[in-house]
Amino acid sequence: MADPRLVRIAEVEVDPDQLAAYKSLLAEVGAASVALEPGVVMLHSASLKDMPNHIRVFEVYADNAAYQAHIQTPHFLKYKQATAQMVTALRLVDVDPILLSAKAGPC
Amino acid sequence: MADPRLVRIAEVEVDPDQLAAYKSLLAEVGAASVALEPGVVMLHSASLKDMPNHIRVFEVYADNAAYQAHIQTPHFLKYKQATAQMVTALRLVDVDPILLSAKAGPC
Repeated sequence: MADPRLVRIAEVEVDPDQLAAYKSLLAEVGAASVALEPGVVMLHSASLKDMPNHIRVFEVYADNAAYQAHIQTPHFLKYKQATAQMVTALRLVDVDPILLSAKAGPC
Repeated sequence: MADPRLVRIAEVEVDPDQLAAYKSLLAEVGAASVALEPGVVMLHSASLKDMPNHIRVFEVYADNAAYQAHIQTPHFLKYKQATAQMVTALRLVDVDPILLSAKAGPC
């Protein structure tokens, strides 16, 4: 049976002068999405140590419908609008999961 | 307090002719590491949809000591040896976590 999960790595470049504000908004939308949306399985965000304004987000949704619902939520729309002038480049890299493996319990 | 977790994205290129074997070994070491090692928090592996021999692994260890222990385990050493002739490029991208957020329970 095909794996229905939608898995993706977002590669985001952010205006360095607005990086702290961006990271705060990103953490906020990540926490809200996992807490409030049954179909958001995980959202792990991090910044490159040697280029801190380069962000990666490892995103897992239960399926495409869950992702479509996600991008219409108030918290996602707020994030998208609030960060529109902060993000200087965005690349969405679609991936096929090989193995998603984590300790039981919240991260 | 500083976050002690070691978080990294491994970017791996694999010989396309050996991709199936590589993915099997990668899934095996990921499952064993999370199951057997208290300090391996998560290992999520995936292949790029448009370049399937390009692999990404999102890695989280409890701290540097946990990572140092990980690379000395029999299952990691077996993976490293078995894949040495399959991996054509390896880039380890160190990152600082912004927010690691996942549904409770195993993935």
